[in-house]
Amino acid sequence: MEYRRIKDEKEIDGDLIEKDIEGLHGKPLSSVPVNHIASLGGNSVNWSKLKLKSIVTVALTLLTSSQAILIVWSKRAGKYEYSVTTANFSVEALKCALSLLALTRIWKNEGVTEDNRLSTSLDEVIVYPIPAALYLVKNLLQYYIFAYVDAPGYQILKNLNIISTGVLYRIILKKKLSEIQWAAFILLCAGCTTAQLNPSSDHVLQTPFQGWMMAIVMALLSGFAGVYTEAIIKKRPSRNINVQNFWLYVFGMVFNAVAILVQDFDAVMNEGFFHGYSLITVCMILNHALSGLAVSMVMKYADNIVKVYSTSVAMLLTAIVSVFLFRFHLSLAFFLGSTVVSVSIYLHSIGKLQR
Amino acid sequence: MEYRRIKDEKEIDGDLIEKDIEGLHGKPLSSVPVNHIASLGGNSVNWSKLKLKSIVTVALTLLTSSQAILIVWSKRAGKYEYSVTTANFSVEALKCALSLLALTRIWKNEGVTEDNRLSTSLDEVIVYPIPAALYLVKNLLQYYIFAYVDAPGYQILKNLNIISTGVLYRIILKKKLSEIQWAAFILLCAGCTTAQLNPSSDHVLQTPFQGWMMAIVMALLSGFAGVYTEAIIKKRPSRNINVQNFWLYVFGMVFNAVAILVQDFDAVMNEGFFHGYSLITVCMILNHALSGLAVSMVMKYADNIVKVYSTSVAMLLTAIVSVFLFRFHLSLAFFLGSTVVSVSIYLHSIGKLQR
Repeated sequence: MEYRRIKDEKEIDGDLIEKDIEGLHGKPLSSVPVNHIASLGGNSVNWSKLKLKSIVTVALTLLTSSQAILIVWSKRAGKYEYSVTTANFSVEALKCALSLLALTRIWKNEGVTEDNRLSTSLDEVIVYPIPAALYLVKNLLQYYIFAYVDAPGYQILKNLNIISTGVLYRIILKKKLSEIQWAAFILLCAGCTTAQLNPSSDHVLQTPFQGWMMAIVMALLSGFAGVYTEAIIKKRPSRNINVQNFWLYVFGMVFNAVAILVQDFDAVMNEGFFHGYSLITVCMILNHALSGLAVSMVMKYADNIVKVYSTSVAMLLTAIVSVFLFRFHLSLAFFLGSTVVSVSIYLHSIGKLQR
Repeated sequence: MEYRRIKDEKEIDGDLIEKDIEGLHGKPLSSVPVNHIASLGGNSVNWSKLKLKSIVTVALTLLTSSQAILIVWSKRAGKYEYSVTTANFSVEALKCALSLLALTRIWKNEGVTEDNRLSTSLDEVIVYPIPAALYLVKNLLQYYIFAYVDAPGYQILKNLNIISTGVLYRIILKKKLSEIQWAAFILLCAGCTTAQLNPSSDHVLQTPFQGWMMAIVMALLSGFAGVYTEAIIKKRPSRNINVQNFWLYVFGMVFNAVAILVQDFDAVMNEGFFHGYSLITVCMILNHALSGLAVSMVMKYADNIVKVYSTSVAMLLTAIVSVFLFRFHLSLAFFLGSTVVSVSIYLHSIGKLQR
């Protein structure tokens, strides 16, 4: 029972993580002005881009894996009673504030330009609420899928996101993956699932048809939101990422405010907005905000494929770090899954060269 | 308990299967005279070769998977008490007889030539006992490894054969595999192991150092024997495969005769050579003999890499057929492992084209 309780609680927090990782909002972690890099010529641009891409990918991987570790840590510290919706709102607000802070610095150094001004046109901004709305629908579905699947089973089914992201990336962004990269993507999904196998995983095979359908729809929603965010951010490459983030987060705040009103209005009114917050809650919110910013950077300077690989590696890193921190035991399935994921990463890079 | 019992018993028979699959002795299943095919010109030779290669590969896959099914079947029918060494000897003798039968037909149709005459030189025949001797050493080691690993753990460790075969194939036969094919080979090993995972598999991680060393040595012996057999058979391509098989099996008979003397001399003297044989034992011996011939054909017309893929696919086929025959349940790990193996096969063929 204890195990199940922790699992379920972790799941609830899973929403928080996922919402933020998949919130796909970002701001440069360093204050390197993007326009400055873009204005450099030829090779140095490519180098800077590659460097930037590597930095944001590593940052995303480390932040994502530390996120999961923070959650385990907070669970070990005892049950906490804050409302998840206010935490989500705080994350959005923090990201919004950080984006504005970065913008004020850029304005001071470079002045206000067409690309970094905050004001926008209806044409530009009208697509920004779409990812947030998609996540809202997905998160609502999440309450219903648990009628068909248990929490560990849902963790397994969530790996369908990997496939849906690849398929939608191909369809919506019209970017081709080579045959080898497709093979690598299927392996990434199989490897991640293998690494998460535990003795009760087989239950997932008994998932009824409705459960499968909901899992597939949720994977498509999540994949679509990610790919759509990339499309929005990449549509105008010269546009400052902080402005793009600002607008994404504004709508994130609006949707989370609605969630507070619907779900936790009474609790917030009676016990206050920050009821139940502890130091670890604050750390988690900070971490989620930074991860969100890293995701957004990956969308700007890399793509959804890199994001999927990054979060998969983070999952493996989390398990390895947990061995030292919490004396977790690594299973044979974990080693096999990690091997398959490693080969998948290798094949993905090989596939890129051979394209 | 029932499940575990079957697993363990299957293990004991595993030796019999493996010994024969790895006996690497063969004879054409069809009586197509090899020299006849070789004498056809240009494209039709390539076509015939590809067809022959496909036929022997499919035959090996089907025979290997039906082998495992026969074993489960015989277990269901009740425990049998025949001596494994006499069964092994019978398999070698049967293969020897079938090779001679095929040879007499060829002599009648084509007359005796330099390539199909049975008489041989010391130079040619001196290497033939080496594979049989290697297997003998490996089978002796098998008795000692169980001091360190349990039977299901040994099944898992046996997948190291895949890697050792690839490495020795590269070193001894000096045939290159492309980067993608190496990746595919690692995946094949990981996929096969994943497909065999069960809740007790994690024990294998507690294998002591000596156990690991023995498993690695055994994998190397087994891989070396396979690759060496291929080297022997391929050394003189025009030599009739039935003659090559005849000499391989003669030494197989000699080594198995020694094994009978050492292990089962008393039982054979007191109860007779064929004591405890049933219809199913005869079927199994027939099946093992045909599988051995198919392995030999694969060595002649394809290679050890094809053999490894073929026996891996056979393992998956066996599990799927067992679902229908014995109402086995397929685990999620099986599906994941099968996916990885399938991708591995795909990558192997892609890797060949891109080489």
